[in-house]
Amino acid sequence: MSPNRLPILITMGDAAGIGAETIVAAHLQQPEQLRNTVVLGDVACMRRAAALYAGPGQTALPVALLESLAQVPQVPPGCIAVLQVEPALQPPAWGQVSAQAGAFAGACVFKAAEIVLSGQASAMVTAPLHKEALSAAGLPYSQYPGHTEMLQAAAARRLQCEPAALPVRMMLANAELRTVLVSIHVSLRKAIEAVTYEQVLQTLLVTDRALRSALGRAPRIAVAGLNPHAGEGGLFGREEIDIIVPAMQEATLQGCQVSGPWSPDTVFMRARRPQGQDGEFDVVVAMYHDQGLIPVKYLGVDEGVNVTLGLPLVRTSPDHGTAFDIAGTAQASPQSLLQALEMARVLVRT
Amino acid sequence: MSPNRLPILITMGDAAGIGAETIVAAHLQQPEQLRNTVVLGDVACMRRAAALYAGPGQTALPVALLESLAQVPQVPPGCIAVLQVEPALQPPAWGQVSAQAGAFAGACVFKAAEIVLSGQASAMVTAPLHKEALSAAGLPYSQYPGHTEMLQAAAARRLQCEPAALPVRMMLANAELRTVLVSIHVSLRKAIEAVTYEQVLQTLLVTDRALRSALGRAPRIAVAGLNPHAGEGGLFGREEIDIIVPAMQEATLQGCQVSGPWSPDTVFMRARRPQGQDGEFDVVVAMYHDQGLIPVKYLGVDEGVNVTLGLPLVRTSPDHGTAFDIAGTAQASPQSLLQALEMARVLVRT
Repeated sequence: MSPNRLPILITMGDAAGIGAETIVAAHLQQPEQLRNTVVLGDVACMRRAAALYAGPGQTALPVALLESLAQVPQVPPGCIAVLQVEPALQPPAWGQVSAQAGAFAGACVFKAAEIVLSGQASAMVTAPLHKEALSAAGLPYSQYPGHTEMLQAAAARRLQCEPAALPVRMMLANAELRTVLVSIHVSLRKAIEAVTYEQVLQTLLVTDRALRSALGRAPRIAVAGLNPHAGEGGLFGREEIDIIVPAMQEATLQGCQVSGPWSPDTVFMRARRPQGQDGEFDVVVAMYHDQGLIPVKYLGVDEGVNVTLGLPLVRTSPDHGTAFDIAGTAQASPQSLLQALEMARVLVRT
Repeated sequence: MSPNRLPILITMGDAAGIGAETIVAAHLQQPEQLRNTVVLGDVACMRRAAALYAGPGQTALPVALLESLAQVPQVPPGCIAVLQVEPALQPPAWGQVSAQAGAFAGACVFKAAEIVLSGQASAMVTAPLHKEALSAAGLPYSQYPGHTEMLQAAAARRLQCEPAALPVRMMLANAELRTVLVSIHVSLRKAIEAVTYEQVLQTLLVTDRALRSALGRAPRIAVAGLNPHAGEGGLFGREEIDIIVPAMQEATLQGCQVSGPWSPDTVFMRARRPQGQDGEFDVVVAMYHDQGLIPVKYLGVDEGVNVTLGLPLVRTSPDHGTAFDIAGTAQASPQSLLQALEMARVLVRT
């Protein structure tokens, strides 16, 4: 079977959060788009979520428990396929931290990674985990801050290397803008320290490789400066001159199509592709978390997608958390999950 | 005459840049909105700019040389009024740095500030200066990085105090978003050092005072964190806990309506007022230049406005530079200048 006919896995995420109900809502809104996908999760939890959307006297969306991945392509649209890769979970109270839910969600992520890495599925789309539940679950889950590190560990196991040998970067994308971050969840002080020649170069190379597959050509990578006006020739900081430009030169030598460093306050506007128009760049490499996330989220977070670059698997996720405050109320929007699924299909199509 | 009937001054900016032609284009596009304004500049330069827009055989927009400010209200729409406060300037070549143009532009800014500070005009809108021309002009102009410091000096002279006693902040605004910056043109490292209790508190107080006049009520001030997720409870940096929250508490005691510190990646989206809808906040206090400018500029820079807060005068300016590369080609958009004028009228109306 060619890679793009292989099923796409959707991990259910923390069972006390909005993961399950956004999957149901996605099936209700766009059944065709959900074809050839399978939820790695718990069938009872998925049925509880499906029931949220059934009005009085209505039948909930059917949830089918599969025996194997081979059955996925045969599941009709409008039916949610579940692969129960872990023993059944007692559905936890909505919005409550639960060690059992944390462990279950973590196990599904590892299992999904194994399946994709072994070539039985083409990609994984991950519904949100809850950090505290993961922590309450104990080892091995408690040692991972989130998905990225879990996937890095899974890939390293498979490739028999150290996780550090697999440099990972996060790409945030919506319909108008893509940005890849040099660093993510560290203080701004530490983020400045993370702007090193090696890290910037790695980010450029990882970005080039990942988007080259997706676009079918070399991506036009714009590099944002670290400082206002990209340092204004050294007046407002020298990182551009001392670090970023040399890393860009090496990336260019290695075949990347990079430009910059551009003034951070206008590079995202220039890369923006409103209503399908072309932007000046295909992707912006941002030097720190908020530099990239402020513009990606500015027009609303409903359709943001998170993509893990640098691993030997395709993984996307919606750009929101477990939203414990509204879990179980059928209010959560499935737009970001649908976009994550679409992005996964784009990345697999190559 | 009540303050809102007093004329508004428009300084011509560097004569080799796009200032003069954007003023002409603004008069052409919205003659009514330009009523009761007067250009502090050079009549020959303004006539040269007006001629750029006259097609073959067409008459250029008339440029009237006034004798005094008292004549301004009588100038008909469609006529550009100029007050020649300095000896006539030999129009410089478009797009060339010129010491004469720098000195002339600087003198107009100081003169405009004096006129507004003395109560003979209600506000000043400043077309862009060119830093190198200002520097080439020699003292006193060469000692000022830009408008803000010149206006601070002019106000300090009038109030007989030290410039440092007049804390100034920059507000960037467009139709959808207002943001006030704790620091501006310094490296990101120095910007982090500038996040002190005193600087944050001063920014909050200056923001409150300025927008309270403009809105007629206490503005809802959102405070952005410095770090990703506003520090995530100290995990990604402690500036929020150690500095920002104490400054917010003091501002609250002094009557400000502040909230936060919010996660920087979503606070601007929450404050956004698309198509006149209300946002959650009236203004976002940003901890550094790009944090605030990336979202303000993301949707396009044509309509950005720069407002100097904290001085005893109203000053706004378009959010673009001299654009030497297109000066003299009649291509520059007057939208930002028109927005700056509108913003000045809003700030004066109180």
